[in-house]
Amino acid sequence: MTKPGKFIVVEGLEGAGKSSAIATITNWLQQHQLKVVSTREPGGTPLAEKLRTLVKQIDHNELLAPETELLLMYAARVQLLTNIIRPALSRGDWVLADRHDMSSRAYQGGGRQLDEQLINNLRSAVLGNTRPDLTLYLDIDPAVGLSRAAARGELDRIEQEQLAFFIRTRQKYLQIAATEPDIVSIDASQPLAAVQQAIVRALDNHFSGLANG
Amino acid sequence: MTKPGKFIVVEGLEGAGKSSAIATITNWLQQHQLKVVSTREPGGTPLAEKLRTLVKQIDHNELLAPETELLLMYAARVQLLTNIIRPALSRGDWVLADRHDMSSRAYQGGGRQLDEQLINNLRSAVLGNTRPDLTLYLDIDPAVGLSRAAARGELDRIEQEQLAFFIRTRQKYLQIAATEPDIVSIDASQPLAAVQQAIVRALDNHFSGLANG
Repeated sequence: MTKPGKFIVVEGLEGAGKSSAIATITNWLQQHQLKVVSTREPGGTPLAEKLRTLVKQIDHNELLAPETELLLMYAARVQLLTNIIRPALSRGDWVLADRHDMSSRAYQGGGRQLDEQLINNLRSAVLGNTRPDLTLYLDIDPAVGLSRAAARGELDRIEQEQLAFFIRTRQKYLQIAATEPDIVSIDASQPLAAVQQAIVRALDNHFSGLANG
Repeated sequence: MTKPGKFIVVEGLEGAGKSSAIATITNWLQQHQLKVVSTREPGGTPLAEKLRTLVKQIDHNELLAPETELLLMYAARVQLLTNIIRPALSRGDWVLADRHDMSSRAYQGGGRQLDEQLINNLRSAVLGNTRPDLTLYLDIDPAVGLSRAAARGELDRIEQEQLAFFIRTRQKYLQIAATEPDIVSIDASQPLAAVQQAIVRALDNHFSGLANG
């Protein structure tokens, strides 16, 4: 029987260093000879990528209602879960996700201050039993993260929000991370080598014996 | 002070005669010199129309998960409510809608058999206090309606469902119509003149004194 794969998620504000973390994790997975499927959210399927474009697009000539944003995020997520993530885990592949459900809780719940009850209802309807085995949350001061993100190029519709939005988003990230055991917080303001070390340590701890078992 | 407008919705299966009913209602509104904003769902704003295209499109090269369909319907609906319907009603305009929330309850709840709790949570989050003043539900045997719809041209992704799907959808339509006082069921298998008469009677009864008051 195929051993089900594991589901690893990288989370954090813009400029927290998610891409670099994903490279470190990919390297760790390769060292352990694990087959990995990489995803990003919103997106990751043809339809979900169209929804990503709609959500990030700046010039809509109309207000994008906060509830619309939330529903589009979960619509994209259910497509990705149904068509990519669940089949991969069933095959025994590992899944490495650039953002997942914690982003909606932090950005739409914290940043946009949308109703938590609605978000929780969506979560239970959409996620089912598919929950990450390990989430690495890269914590960064939004002022630092945003200046890093801005240096990379033009900001999308959500990245153009005011600082207060990202302060609320970070607060929610920290609040969730503090209460859920499968989320490891990493101080992303440290030098790169220290962040990489912390990531590898988290992987070794969390999957000790599993990777080769 | 502007008297708030009224919100009229036309509902029913494909081929029930919604377009003809809308013409009859438009005529009635003009006779009463009422200003009307017409909408259709899913759609009615630039973004919502893009979601309509995604939802109706046949060739996705991927399964459209039932939950994705539901969330896209409500995403489109919240855009339309926020940007078109609520502002129109506040201005004192009447709104005449080709489908609204009852469609999701019937098609996604009845046809797709999605969780009623989830649908109700979405409804309360998205609709708020904006509920139709009158819904005209055109009841038709799905076999009759579908053959009429097929005669009009190519069927979209949802219209291509099996008959059993539409039987469940109609059942849910009837069930909702039977319990909610602002929904009037009209037998759409009658000759056109009789249907038109029934529509005008429902409008006269429901808005007696209001239209000129």
